[in-house]
Amino acid sequence: MGRTTGAGPVREALAALPLVDHHCHGVVTAELDRPGLESLLTEGEAWPGSGVSPFDSPVGVAVRRHCAPVLDLPRHAPADAYAARRAELGAAEVNRRFLAASGTRVFCVDTGYAPQPLTTPAELAAAAGGDATAHEVVRLEGVAEAVAARGVEPGEYGAVVAEAARQAVRRPGVVAVKSVAAYRTGFALDPARPSAAEVTRAAAGWLGRGGSRLDDPVLVRHLLWTAVDLGLPLQLHSGFGDADLRLHQADPALLTDWLRLTAGTIPVMLLHCWPYHRQAAHLAAVFERVYLDVGLALHHVGPARARAVLAEALEITPFRKLLHSSDAYGVAEFHHLGAVAFRQGLAAILGELVDADELSQADALRIARWTGRDNARRVYGLDGLPDLPH
Amino acid sequence: MGRTTGAGPVREALAALPLVDHHCHGVVTAELDRPGLESLLTEGEAWPGSGVSPFDSPVGVAVRRHCAPVLDLPRHAPADAYAARRAELGAAEVNRRFLAASGTRVFCVDTGYAPQPLTTPAELAAAAGGDATAHEVVRLEGVAEAVAARGVEPGEYGAVVAEAARQAVRRPGVVAVKSVAAYRTGFALDPARPSAAEVTRAAAGWLGRGGSRLDDPVLVRHLLWTAVDLGLPLQLHSGFGDADLRLHQADPALLTDWLRLTAGTIPVMLLHCWPYHRQAAHLAAVFERVYLDVGLALHHVGPARARAVLAEALEITPFRKLLHSSDAYGVAEFHHLGAVAFRQGLAAILGELVDADELSQADALRIARWTGRDNARRVYGLDGLPDLPH
Amino acid sequence: MGRTTGAGPVREALAALPLVDHHCHGVVTAELDRPGLESLLTEGEAWPGSGVSPFDSPVGVAVRRHCAPVLDLPRHAPADAYAARRAELGAAEVNRRFLAASGTRVFCVDTGYAPQPLTTPAELAAAAGGDATAHEVVRLEGVAEAVAARGVEPGEYGAVVAEAARQAVRRPGVVAVKSVAAYRTGFALDPARPSAAEVTRAAAGWLGRGGSRLDDPVLVRHLLWTAVDLGLPLQLHSGFGDADLRLHQADPALLTDWLRLTAGTIPVMLLHCWPYHRQAAHLAAVFERVYLDVGLALHHVGPARARAVLAEALEITPFRKLLHSSDAYGVAEFHHLGAVAFRQGLAAILGELVDADELSQADALRIARWTGRDNARRVYGLDGLPDLPH
Repeated sequence: MGRTTGAGPVREALAALPLVDHHCHGVVTAELDRPGLESLLTEGEAWPGSGVSPFDSPVGVAVRRHCAPVLDLPRHAPADAYAARRAELGAAEVNRRFLAASGTRVFCVDTGYAPQPLTTPAELAAAAGGDATAHEVVRLEGVAEAVAARGVEPGEYGAVVAEAARQAVRRPGVVAVKSVAAYRTGFALDPARPSAAEVTRAAAGWLGRGGSRLDDPVLVRHLLWTAVDLGLPLQLHSGFGDADLRLHQADPALLTDWLRLTAGTIPVMLLHCWPYHRQAAHLAAVFERVYLDVGLALHHVGPARARAVLAEALEITPFRKLLHSSDAYGVAEFHHLGAVAFRQGLAAILGELVDADELSQADALRIARWTGRDNARRVYGLDGLPDLPH
Repeated sequence: MGRTTGAGPVREALAALPLVDHHCHGVVTAELDRPGLESLLTEGEAWPGSGVSPFDSPVGVAVRRHCAPVLDLPRHAPADAYAARRAELGAAEVNRRFLAASGTRVFCVDTGYAPQPLTTPAELAAAAGGDATAHEVVRLEGVAEAVAARGVEPGEYGAVVAEAARQAVRRPGVVAVKSVAAYRTGFALDPARPSAAEVTRAAAGWLGRGGSRLDDPVLVRHLLWTAVDLGLPLQLHSGFGDADLRLHQADPALLTDWLRLTAGTIPVMLLHCWPYHRQAAHLAAVFERVYLDVGLALHHVGPARARAVLAEALEITPFRKLLHSSDAYGVAEFHHLGAVAFRQGLAAILGELVDADELSQADALRIARWTGRDNARRVYGLDGLPDLPH
Repeated sequence: MGRTTGAGPVREALAALPLVDHHCHGVVTAELDRPGLESLLTEGEAWPGSGVSPFDSPVGVAVRRHCAPVLDLPRHAPADAYAARRAELGAAEVNRRFLAASGTRVFCVDTGYAPQPLTTPAELAAAAGGDATAHEVVRLEGVAEAVAARGVEPGEYGAVVAEAARQAVRRPGVVAVKSVAAYRTGFALDPARPSAAEVTRAAAGWLGRGGSRLDDPVLVRHLLWTAVDLGLPLQLHSGFGDADLRLHQADPALLTDWLRLTAGTIPVMLLHCWPYHRQAAHLAAVFERVYLDVGLALHHVGPARARAVLAEALEITPFRKLLHSSDAYGVAEFHHLGAVAFRQGLAAILGELVDADELSQADALRIARWTGRDNARRVYGLDGLPDLPH
């Protein structure tokens, strides 16, 4: 029996699997020069004049290795050549190439973060070609901030936000809501549902301070409970993010009390999670409706290292609880790179287990289909399709 | 020199080593149908109707791979076939097979958690056959809760609990005490020994609330100091556990101040530890009487992944400080699977080091004997036997 | 194409690279017997009579494997033989051998911790031979404690400490300052610059308590802001350390607010970091002037495991942000072992990536030069030399 007896079919199956990317963003529609491209490659900022280029990082190396060939460049093409070729092809063509190459057939798009003009979900799906479809994820902080911007009395804030959220999720194609509570207050919050009086008092304070960036702990908590009322899956940013984050406050274990209080209600999707993916896995193992992914981390560490991160995430995670997301934002390279990292990383893990006879090939193939596609279809009820046979 | 020159003998030595399982529980004596079996395979709950079976997880895959053959089934037997064969053989035969297959010769049994009827330590050892012996670990919260159940005045609580603990550890076969402080209050507790007045006041409060589940921080702390007075090794649940836990509060680093205050007194055995096993290793490296294991985690991640977890746990841990435990509860599969994971994981680590000439074979064999058996014998004074030559 | 096409040249380049050790200490000048040697091998203490020898640990195994040959002993020589040979050669010869063998050409020496007589930076460089040079790192807590020891009025404390720090860093060869805030108060501190009145009040309290070990949170914070005023890179102990530490309070993520407030000022060098190296990497990825190393951890886990720790540290770290340090203290074995672990661990990572065509060989060689030497030269402005071509 050759060493690749098991790994081969698993790798092929994962390479061919139509993926569901259950959390991503649109891509910028503007043309990007090298500085513009670099600013989108990092969770930090581009630091002009610092001598540190975002290309000189694991994700930069991964882009030059895995994305350059999609633009007809040799592997490891220099950053300047890469940026030049990108400009030459134009954003539309670049986006089409990467989104098609990703093999993603369903995109769940968080539309609540757009400091730059981005593709709509429909545009993203169209750029991916074929039968690709897109669904929308509504960011709850954005709903509340829009309510504040339109003007609202503190005493009506709770009801108006709840109604605005209900309206938002009634829009066609909406499959989930999202909260960035991790950024705004962190997860070490009072788990209880705030009373109407508390919400009014907090709204008075926040609106009085201008009501722009929702960072009041009572109102953030109110949004988490609003999500419970809406009944849709709730995506929660966890762990890895940009300089706006206090990483240790985004450890999802801090949410335990809230998860206990809300057990049996909505699915809770822990996004990213790194470096707290083991903590997230523990929550997914002990709470029925908790799920996780290691999106964002996978393309930042790159396909070569994705296996190690996925292996940690999968140590105790029930196979029905891990999903694929890219969390790509801005550049379609990341929709592609996230998919490559997921496919290759998972194939390496499962293939090695099959080769060592620690896992049957049938089980490996099932785990691949579940995590890459069916778990998301099941949680979000995508297309109304039943689960595939397993 | 072939690649397996070093790994072979180390693997053989570990495969044949009579293990001490320094922390485990009994097995249920009732017959188990598939739902009953599933409910014992997970640290969460079985979630009937959720579409998520505990078999669809790393530990489920490991059971089908490593336990099915012990029941005369092929590797990777389906879950239904597994449950049917288990029922056919009957609990007594199943338990005998797994306990014998584990190669464990000494069991230290935590008798303080028994929501279902379980084997006694003596029954567990008898089922393992041959010269297997069992010792008892007394759970301190259980002692205190029994005192409350019998009725006690707040002002006498401290003295009565201390005396009840002394009586409990005087029973033949008791080698250690255990605390689940991690579950009840977490480790971020005031490290100081509570005064008699504080204990009385806290007891009045707790007893007044019904005195059923001991979760008062002063009284939990009082139990930790009671352990110091008793002079026996104290096992502490750390890290990984069920839905009743706030994982981040079970990080053993939070115990640092208490370990400093109690340095030079009793051995402190940090159980499980994952995902804080590196933090536990740090404590074991800097405090003379702190030890650790990665039990529970090893069978949940499965033998195929145990190597990675053990390798992290061993990064800086003195070799006299790591022990083997299964933390198996309820099903004898886990006594076996924990042993397999420990043997195979450690053999893979040590064998690779020997092959790379990073470790001598004599050292590898010594580390195997220490961690699998002799460290426990030494700490618990098992059998009054001296350490084996090293 | 053979499997070692890429790994070979990378390994050779790293083996030959003249290293900058950007954070280390001197070596003891006294002769060491076995207990003396053992006491320096562990971050804990030697525990005489405990049956646990510091040699029975990963770092002990690594010393016997990688250091014994430098003393003309066979690999894996027994601890007694090792200690005897060391005594036979004498401290001066032993130190010369290890410092030369390390291939380190520039040492940045923290002179602020010397419970035993140690070599000066100049003596350390001289022992390393050839063109090795040494620079000094001034420990700020030592500056403040010296001020207190000389006597100071609380109202003048702030100004006197600032002036003493300015004087200290004006000495020839000083390239950085260091704080052990992680030990003294932990990183969960108020990030704001303390007012003069706050400093006076805190100084009155601390000086009134004797003013020996600086552990007042306001005064520790004052030192961090003093570092900002000095303008030199600030080295911060993070993570892994001795029994005096509360590990969880040394998680560098806790510093996020302070890093945000001081962004754009001084370089902040996070030292050691393990087991929070992923958290440190996140900070280095999102803050322009944050850097990290995994010194101390590398020799304690040993060259055989250094690869795994470095791989985690490098998951998302920009390649301009990782540095090499040994954090060796007391015994020159650790200057050598840290260098071996860094060279071998990084070569294994980069070589495998090159072999898998995930990284070009030119990039691999550049990353090796940057992390082993040029990043430190750049941050500290060593020798006034420009960066080497890349």
